[in-house]
Amino acid sequence: MRLESLRYTERFGSVRINDLQKVLELDSGKKSETPRKEEIAVHKIEDEVIKDIEGRMAIVIPIKDEKLKLFEGVISGIPHDCLIIAVSNSQKKRVDRFRMERDTLAQFCRFTQRRALVIHQKDENLAQGLAQAGYSDMLDEKGVVRDGKSEGMIIGILLAMLNKKEYVAFIDSDNYIPGAVWEYVKIYAAGFSLAQSPYAMVRVLWHYKPKISPEMYFKKWGRVSEITNKHINALLSEKTGFETEIIKTANAGEHAMTIKLAEILPYASGYAVEPQELVSIFEGFGGILPTGSQAAAKHGIEIFQIETRNPHLHEERGRMHLREMLVPGLSTIYYSDLCDKKLKERMSQELIDLGTLQPGEEIPRPHLVPPPKKVDVQSFASFMKEHLYTYSVLEE
Amino acid sequence: MRLESLRYTERFGSVRINDLQKVLELDSGKKSETPRKEEIAVHKIEDEVIKDIEGRMAIVIPIKDEKLKLFEGVISGIPHDCLIIAVSNSQKKRVDRFRMERDTLAQFCRFTQRRALVIHQKDENLAQGLAQAGYSDMLDEKGVVRDGKSEGMIIGILLAMLNKKEYVAFIDSDNYIPGAVWEYVKIYAAGFSLAQSPYAMVRVLWHYKPKISPEMYFKKWGRVSEITNKHINALLSEKTGFETEIIKTANAGEHAMTIKLAEILPYASGYAVEPQELVSIFEGFGGILPTGSQAAAKHGIEIFQIETRNPHLHEERGRMHLREMLVPGLSTIYYSDLCDKKLKERMSQELIDLGTLQPGEEIPRPHLVPPPKKVDVQSFASFMKEHLYTYSVLEE
Repeated sequence: MRLESLRYTERFGSVRINDLQKVLELDSGKKSETPRKEEIAVHKIEDEVIKDIEGRMAIVIPIKDEKLKLFEGVISGIPHDCLIIAVSNSQKKRVDRFRMERDTLAQFCRFTQRRALVIHQKDENLAQGLAQAGYSDMLDEKGVVRDGKSEGMIIGILLAMLNKKEYVAFIDSDNYIPGAVWEYVKIYAAGFSLAQSPYAMVRVLWHYKPKISPEMYFKKWGRVSEITNKHINALLSEKTGFETEIIKTANAGEHAMTIKLAEILPYASGYAVEPQELVSIFEGFGGILPTGSQAAAKHGIEIFQIETRNPHLHEERGRMHLREMLVPGLSTIYYSDLCDKKLKERMSQELIDLGTLQPGEEIPRPHLVPPPKKVDVQSFASFMKEHLYTYSVLEE
Repeated sequence: MRLESLRYTERFGSVRINDLQKVLELDSGKKSETPRKEEIAVHKIEDEVIKDIEGRMAIVIPIKDEKLKLFEGVISGIPHDCLIIAVSNSQKKRVDRFRMERDTLAQFCRFTQRRALVIHQKDENLAQGLAQAGYSDMLDEKGVVRDGKSEGMIIGILLAMLNKKEYVAFIDSDNYIPGAVWEYVKIYAAGFSLAQSPYAMVRVLWHYKPKISPEMYFKKWGRVSEITNKHINALLSEKTGFETEIIKTANAGEHAMTIKLAEILPYASGYAVEPQELVSIFEGFGGILPTGSQAAAKHGIEIFQIETRNPHLHEERGRMHLREMLVPGLSTIYYSDLCDKKLKERMSQELIDLGTLQPGEEIPRPHLVPPPKKVDVQSFASFMKEHLYTYSVLEE
């Protein structure tokens, strides 16, 4: 893979926010000595470097009643050396869709001779293990894991930890293009290969997100992303005194982290999860509020933003209201201790102008699940040990 | 890459027609010893095998007034080690689109440090070289190369020959998905790696070809393909006495050949070009009509048909009439010396029933350009030698 080289980095305390880098070439061919004149503008990341990272990476696929053909396409695009972890919150009662997902994954893994895990979000052993290890914030009043994609993501992170992976990445199960899924993984690995800190994050920006109806129109920015990016940049600008547009991936669902970083971040519910990660990083490592991790602050946190070559084409499941998508993202900024009154007012006003908030109404506070590091991993691991084989799709 | 292993092959004289093989996994990871039990059902093709073939492959991209964003996406998906040969028949007068294509390609190649050729179909030196080398069938009354995609393909084959490539492949310039382009090339290389004969062809079947309007619908077979496949299979069935459905890629625009095979086939104009390749192979090597190449007959011709994982999404340029697309393809079967009266009548009747042919109207005969082997390659090469550098996008 060839990427544009890093041309610009902004610093916020010990956070290094790298400007957008574009993928130039999906497949950069055989290993070679890069000519010197190329190095200035372009990073060539050799296949063996990428594959080495893939072998240490878990790909978490949250899935909920998704079309099986799409799920099958997604898994076919994930490079072989990655560990697939499907976290399902699909129905089991009327039609056992979880069983179908498991069967689809098992058939794929049997033919391609690879390992994969699949777990249901409401798995009872999992819930018991979490409760025992002190992570009951994840559980609802019935004692099973709460609904929500971010809870699924955390289950994925924990399973990646139990499987001794060093990187964890997220890919949605509704992607139409297996080749785009493949590119996301290459981008994650390429980003990590450039990281100097063991606390790194790679966020994907879609080259285009086509609108497919009534005809193909290649939209560069979604409105929600545009507004969320604007306010998260304002949060930075007002603290540093320099206006910035550095954040271009506030809502990036396709993203990856080193486990070291993933385990020290809290996770917000629903559409708040991705912007919250950034806000939490800025809070914890921006040098303004007290840090939660001296070790991470010492190494610094590195954020990569990489633009795909493939367009993003995914299943449209009815119209989401602007409110449902926009308000949770902005709430992460609104309730940050970094956010001052002026910015709060600007955000409220914008939401009122857009008709997504009533005058006088308060923005709802995001629900935060504390960092996976809170779990007593030893206790969790020893409880889960005897159940782990039940999540493996291939008999071992 | 992992492919389904070959489960079934039909023989027609010295032609081996392999049944459809599906891509199971886009990226099969690090090199490894394949477990024995897997081998029965699955071919794992190692990256180094694929890359080695890519280094000997030219990718020909015919282009005509295509959106530059799409062209740029297509070239970004072609693995680095392949030689890109863009053959343009775009306008140069009012707006010099050829110049823009050249600039786009040059910019890409400068950053990615790769070679590429771009040539205009009406290039005067090319026309002179062809005339001198005895290939005036390619030229029109003005003495330049005729319009048409198949003429562009032949130019590509000739340039691949001059560049000592062993494989030549075709990819359309209107593909929306760079990751799908990448997969086509991997499929070509994977197919060739399985070939036992130096006369081999790989034809791509799209997993789905989505209709994008009014909403996403994943269509498996186009109507034109369905009808063309049916009649080409009938051609085989009636000669062998065994009914067959082996051909599933009669209209495959995405296909590749060894140069040895490419240079001995004639090429038909327009939508007839892809089915004509099959018909010509059946005529020349089916054991019924006299063969044009003893060497090829001895080795046998191998045809691979491989189904992608990615859907095929390309630019829709207005509605084509069924007639324009269907009649040329069927004409290649109709005018084959292998085609008997009964099949001719069935085809005419079907076209009349579809309203694409008037009763009593004769199916137009396809225009055939004789095989590139007809060219006196020595003479062509020595004439072109001093001009070749003008087609290279990077200064050498």
